[in-house]
Amino acid sequence: MAKEITSRNENYSQWYNDIVVKAGLADYSAVRGSMVIKPYGFAIWEKMRDQLDHMFKETGHQNAYFPLFIPKSFFSREAAHVEGFAKECAVVTHYRLKNDPNGKGIVVDEDAKLEEELVVRPTSETIIWNTYKSWIQSYRDLPILINQWANVVRWEMRTRLFLRTAEFLWQEGHTAHATKEEAVEEAERMINVYSTFAREWMAMPVIIGKKSESERFAGAVDTYSIEALMQDGKALQAGTSHFLGQNFAKAFDVKFLNRESQLEYVWATSWGVSTRLMGALVMTHSDDNGLVLPPKLAPTQVVFVPVYKSEEELAAVSEVVAKLRVELHSKGITTHYDDRDNYKPGFKFAEYELKGVPVRVAIGPRDIEKGTVEVARRDTLQKQFVSQNQLAETVVSLLDNIQANLYNRALEFRERNTTRVETYDEFKKVIAENGGFVLAHWDGTPETEALIKEDTKATIRCIPLDMPEEDGKCIVTGKPSKKRAIFALAY
Amino acid sequence: MAKEITSRNENYSQWYNDIVVKAGLADYSAVRGSMVIKPYGFAIWEKMRDQLDHMFKETGHQNAYFPLFIPKSFFSREAAHVEGFAKECAVVTHYRLKNDPNGKGIVVDEDAKLEEELVVRPTSETIIWNTYKSWIQSYRDLPILINQWANVVRWEMRTRLFLRTAEFLWQEGHTAHATKEEAVEEAERMINVYSTFAREWMAMPVIIGKKSESERFAGAVDTYSIEALMQDGKALQAGTSHFLGQNFAKAFDVKFLNRESQLEYVWATSWGVSTRLMGALVMTHSDDNGLVLPPKLAPTQVVFVPVYKSEEELAAVSEVVAKLRVELHSKGITTHYDDRDNYKPGFKFAEYELKGVPVRVAIGPRDIEKGTVEVARRDTLQKQFVSQNQLAETVVSLLDNIQANLYNRALEFRERNTTRVETYDEFKKVIAENGGFVLAHWDGTPETEALIKEDTKATIRCIPLDMPEEDGKCIVTGKPSKKRAIFALAY
Repeated sequence: MAKEITSRNENYSQWYNDIVVKAGLADYSAVRGSMVIKPYGFAIWEKMRDQLDHMFKETGHQNAYFPLFIPKSFFSREAAHVEGFAKECAVVTHYRLKNDPNGKGIVVDEDAKLEEELVVRPTSETIIWNTYKSWIQSYRDLPILINQWANVVRWEMRTRLFLRTAEFLWQEGHTAHATKEEAVEEAERMINVYSTFAREWMAMPVIIGKKSESERFAGAVDTYSIEALMQDGKALQAGTSHFLGQNFAKAFDVKFLNRESQLEYVWATSWGVSTRLMGALVMTHSDDNGLVLPPKLAPTQVVFVPVYKSEEELAAVSEVVAKLRVELHSKGITTHYDDRDNYKPGFKFAEYELKGVPVRVAIGPRDIEKGTVEVARRDTLQKQFVSQNQLAETVVSLLDNIQANLYNRALEFRERNTTRVETYDEFKKVIAENGGFVLAHWDGTPETEALIKEDTKATIRCIPLDMPEEDGKCIVTGKPSKKRAIFALAY
Repeated sequence: MAKEITSRNENYSQWYNDIVVKAGLADYSAVRGSMVIKPYGFAIWEKMRDQLDHMFKETGHQNAYFPLFIPKSFFSREAAHVEGFAKECAVVTHYRLKNDPNGKGIVVDEDAKLEEELVVRPTSETIIWNTYKSWIQSYRDLPILINQWANVVRWEMRTRLFLRTAEFLWQEGHTAHATKEEAVEEAERMINVYSTFAREWMAMPVIIGKKSESERFAGAVDTYSIEALMQDGKALQAGTSHFLGQNFAKAFDVKFLNRESQLEYVWATSWGVSTRLMGALVMTHSDDNGLVLPPKLAPTQVVFVPVYKSEEELAAVSEVVAKLRVELHSKGITTHYDDRDNYKPGFKFAEYELKGVPVRVAIGPRDIEKGTVEVARRDTLQKQFVSQNQLAETVVSLLDNIQANLYNRALEFRERNTTRVETYDEFKKVIAENGGFVLAHWDGTPETEALIKEDTKATIRCIPLDMPEEDGKCIVTGKPSKKRAIFALAY
């Protein structure tokens, strides 16, 4: 095969990188920490974005667009927020370049220094709440249910394609409500939308839970997250939804007249997922042959590869393929016919395995004679011969089957790698030797959480919403605990 | 009416601003020169974007995403390019904020100064051609047909909502080709895509032409543009497509092995339209009552307004409206039912006129008795009674009719305001008294063009591609000319 992929066992991190780069999803750019999302990767992201956008609109949200730049003074208004983001902000200080008078080329024009520096948005709560101030007077103006698709910048020192980059693409919902209950309900609604999306579209099982205080979003009262388990036993936070209380309303003085004609601060939520989901998608399903895509997110669901020696054979194959493609298209299936003449079938097979196309159909002169095609599924690499006149219905059910199989496989993996522990020794052993999700009792204090992190690098991913209450003791302090938290090493 | 709009005659510029703000399309933000695109405005932009995206994909293009930040050294590589953009660049110089040790709040951390400043992209030729260098080795890697939807920043001193803002949204196509012919063909293909979009979707007639040398894109060999005429007699450049020759390939050393195994520089195009189209849309069709939208771009095509006194009457109306909406939806028409109880019908009528909803359907108790509804069209403000069982088909043809009428009205306006002149005196008189497009012979020199601009503020909008050759004399110098150029005052 032309494009060798490092195996997962050999080097998991290199395996991930190989897939992202060699399958054509993304590449490093010449700009420190920023990536280029290549057409194939972007086509997958577009499918994710379109489905999420649809789900946001179905739940009553509208899109809008707010400025990229945030004046430093706004940014500083909410204390916890600025504390959380100040250390990773790209700052615009000048608005002009000029020719260096000493002939040193193009330089920043010091005469064009901004009076107030502008922060490139790492998230938009501050600029949006500053705007909402002029939009909200009375309870009749509420709720405001707005989402924005945008690029954001967080200056990361150690970056990884999709998982952690200085610039990334995301959506950020920002809603304003008249009551606390309504805002909490919204924050929960949206984490459930993310969970549904992860399960039904990405074929990725996730656990919904609340973050501990120290892992909360900077400025939030409560942060909900969905947590997925990757094949190396590390957790990945795939989406968050925040109940912001009245923190931003107070920072930006956003009040409304309620039904009783009293002035009250507005309640808020924000919620987001990003191109990080692309990394989660890759690491949940792919194998040592390359990317594996759930059919619902695959830009091409079925690829046809002709097997032929002569021009005549190719012509005969092409004629059959053209008919078959029409049938598949009529069932809403996306296809590609790769009749490039400068690559052998075997090379193409490897290429589409690398790119994760869910179904490959090969067809040669003998198939023409027998009225068959060879169908290979990417998830299990199994092959079968199928009669041409049954191809369309076979593929429809095969795609459903692959989608379900990927989810079930990932769910089984997670279940195999979820461990309940009762002692700290057991905890340390599991984290060190196996990884995965570890369910343990914890006394609820940031101090114990910090100690565990210090000892083991494991963090609390979340306290699952559906975790039953039970009497237990903190694995570290022995203090009483009512619920287990999920601990894991994390991306 | 609650929201008064300044009339066009009184103050055209204020009229434009009133419509954009009061119809809820956009608003100024607290960030100098940046705007907030509000949900209603963004919904229109989404319709434009989706249709354009569809047309780009139909012509073989794929989307991708490149970094927001461009290292200053890349930016400087193409001489004409940096010359054109250096004076309006937002520059990132630091990557961290900190608490001021002297208690002055949050300040830029001087220890976090970038070694090389980053320019916030005003356009992406440089970062993209730096990337293409590693993607292109042989003619087999060509053509590359990529588009990007993105935000860009050009530091403008005088800004106007949609028409000229420091940050705006756009798409930029960047293609790479093996031959000059193919690149020229691509540049022409895309300006034609823009023209088709303007005509068929925006109902906006445009003239396709080439820019004069002094109006070309910085770094282009040839710039094609589409030019529209606004209601105040000023021209608006609505889209551009550039044949870039080998300029960027040379600046970034991008060569390929051609079929004859010789190394050659790659040929390039770039092309873009932006949220400026929103301004063009507003100014082409709207009137003193507010926004007028072509049905194909209206987020809501038909609004139903109930007219009632009692709860019983409202219930009866609502029942009929529910049935009618289902019928319209089945024909692909988007509708809204405004049953808010805190506004009178007259207030709602004015609001939907302001918002440019193409068709308004009012229905009251008497309509229920008679089986009718009152249908009002936004473009002419005409009303008619229509039988309920004929509403769906009436609306289908009415929407087509409005779309066509808007185009024809705009085309007639342009034709009435296009003047052929033979002398400079005539030219000056028309520009000063009427405006519009002025067709005049010009000797082809930048000097004459500059003189005309100095005298009259009129610029060459383009030399139309379909302008027939004719023997003429330059209106200023009397030198021979083969073609007329279009002159106008412009946005």
